[in-house]
Amino acid sequence: MSYTVAIAGATGLVGRTMLRVLEERNFPIKELKLLASARSAGQVVSAFGKEYIVEELTEHSFAGCDIALFSAGGSTSKQYAPYAAAAGCVVIDNSSTWRMHPNAPLVVPEVNAYALEHHHGIIANPNCSTIQMVVALQPIHEQFGLKRVVVSTYQSVSGAGQKGVDHLQAEIQGKEPESRISTHPLAYNTVFHSITDASGFSEEEIKMKNETRKIMNLPDVKIAVTCVRVPVLGAHSESVNVETEKPMTVESIRAALQGKPGITLVDDPINAVYPTPVAASNKDDVFVGRIRLDDSVENGAHLWVVSDNLRKGAATNAVQIAESLVAHNWLRFEPVEQW
Amino acid sequence: MSYTVAIAGATGLVGRTMLRVLEERNFPIKELKLLASARSAGQVVSAFGKEYIVEELTEHSFAGCDIALFSAGGSTSKQYAPYAAAAGCVVIDNSSTWRMHPNAPLVVPEVNAYALEHHHGIIANPNCSTIQMVVALQPIHEQFGLKRVVVSTYQSVSGAGQKGVDHLQAEIQGKEPESRISTHPLAYNTVFHSITDASGFSEEEIKMKNETRKIMNLPDVKIAVTCVRVPVLGAHSESVNVETEKPMTVESIRAALQGKPGITLVDDPINAVYPTPVAASNKDDVFVGRIRLDDSVENGAHLWVVSDNLRKGAATNAVQIAESLVAHNWLRFEPVEQW
Repeated sequence: MSYTVAIAGATGLVGRTMLRVLEERNFPIKELKLLASARSAGQVVSAFGKEYIVEELTEHSFAGCDIALFSAGGSTSKQYAPYAAAAGCVVIDNSSTWRMHPNAPLVVPEVNAYALEHHHGIIANPNCSTIQMVVALQPIHEQFGLKRVVVSTYQSVSGAGQKGVDHLQAEIQGKEPESRISTHPLAYNTVFHSITDASGFSEEEIKMKNETRKIMNLPDVKIAVTCVRVPVLGAHSESVNVETEKPMTVESIRAALQGKPGITLVDDPINAVYPTPVAASNKDDVFVGRIRLDDSVENGAHLWVVSDNLRKGAATNAVQIAESLVAHNWLRFEPVEQW
Repeated sequence: MSYTVAIAGATGLVGRTMLRVLEERNFPIKELKLLASARSAGQVVSAFGKEYIVEELTEHSFAGCDIALFSAGGSTSKQYAPYAAAAGCVVIDNSSTWRMHPNAPLVVPEVNAYALEHHHGIIANPNCSTIQMVVALQPIHEQFGLKRVVVSTYQSVSGAGQKGVDHLQAEIQGKEPESRISTHPLAYNTVFHSITDASGFSEEEIKMKNETRKIMNLPDVKIAVTCVRVPVLGAHSESVNVETEKPMTVESIRAALQGKPGITLVDDPINAVYPTPVAASNKDDVFVGRIRLDDSVENGAHLWVVSDNLRKGAATNAVQIAESLVAHNWLRFEPVEQW
């Protein structure tokens, strides 16, 4: 079997990474349809040894498509994903639009592939910093029972797309950026994501809390989040403090994580062997290290979790969802009347 | 009154900052003696509108000195500070050598200036990341009773001295650094301090825990620390999660911090007003913002704490200790037989 796949937002940083990941993993493509806004339509993009002309995304783009990978921003997803679903095409959407929607499963295949079984045509790909954290937390939860997580992130500027990369690189070169992702400088600085909530939490922090609960199906798990952008080009790092029901040792945590799908243990502290964003870049796994017991609480431990935010945090996870749908023959779905 | 002041390690990054801070604060200097290793002796350094020739640090350097500010590394402090004290000169030492010594007060004047009263000639200046954290925690503790702290740091490369700055800048310019402070790249990366303890904690992490307890005189307070270096040139940031005995609100935390010595509140999240290392550089205060309640625990809150690690984290705090000794007339001391 092979499938007609559309990519909405094919010229963006995540869209281009989706193409690379589909190629690398030999996803069974029958036809490929590259879609973008009117502004980007007409661009020529190489993939699978061919050249594709990017078409303008419209309501009618999805006729005959099996799967549409969306990474074109929230408002585009909100507007066009329902048209795709109505045309019988399964949307895997990388924006935040549908993530908390009760009809949309929010999926990290290593954690909750089961949630894909009875979807309704729109499947949400979680936030990048959430994905890598839940991949690491799930085996901890299964073995020791997760009670509370206190996480502080060290996020790369590519989380804000090409614009973020360009902003940092311009400043590092001493130039004025053409457009900015923060009113503060990014170079040699630490900044925060957009804060619009009266609680003082950023949108990114609220996402990490809500999405983790939904993906892990732990609606009451305690989560305290601080999300920070650092002058890193690609891959997010996370300082994750966990509190569990059952006692842990460094060895039992390593044993719980070792060999789990999507996880690579990098943890030989005395020899300075630990995950870093530079080493994790362009890789698909979630890298975990600096496992230490935290004696400040009963059953506490520290983890350092690093992954490429454009890959496992976005493109790779979306393609893995597509692979899972195909492998289980779950592409067909019961539509809902209204999204 | 004016005083004869020696600076041991006068050519290093902290030593040079100590000179600037003494000038800026008009410390009452009678004579200034700049000391360094044989390698740096003979260098000419400008300060207080004069030129000084750096002398070689020896056992006899401290005759006639009232105060010696040491920032010449741990082994130099260990070797020479006792000679200074034996000569009746009060040492304020920036290395980690004497910090946990029972005869050496470990002082952040905003927190425990009282500990200077009965010193024995060697006073320890705490670790940079510890200083800024305890300045922020002390008013929280006084108001709400501190139970537990979970902190993740975002530390600048200048914490490793000029060598750290040179390593990062070389890599940013695409050059091989002449010497390295980490086997991992610093540019666009996150790395850890030296890890030598079997627990997996870095020396920096162990310092933050032990020093915080000693300075705040809270030997049992719960502290969980992860220390990280980020590609920032100057000023450390800290994501600090606190748990207290009494309930807090965002307003009551702000009220507790507002106007306290050494603290500047920078906290208007909706308008993206928060502390950053770029903005905190070359300033003496500890900047606190992103105050949020943490609903994952009873009486929890988040703080973001930023300060210039060469100033409040090192030079300024050392000079403030000297000012406090002078103001209280606490320069004279009862010597101990052996250090």
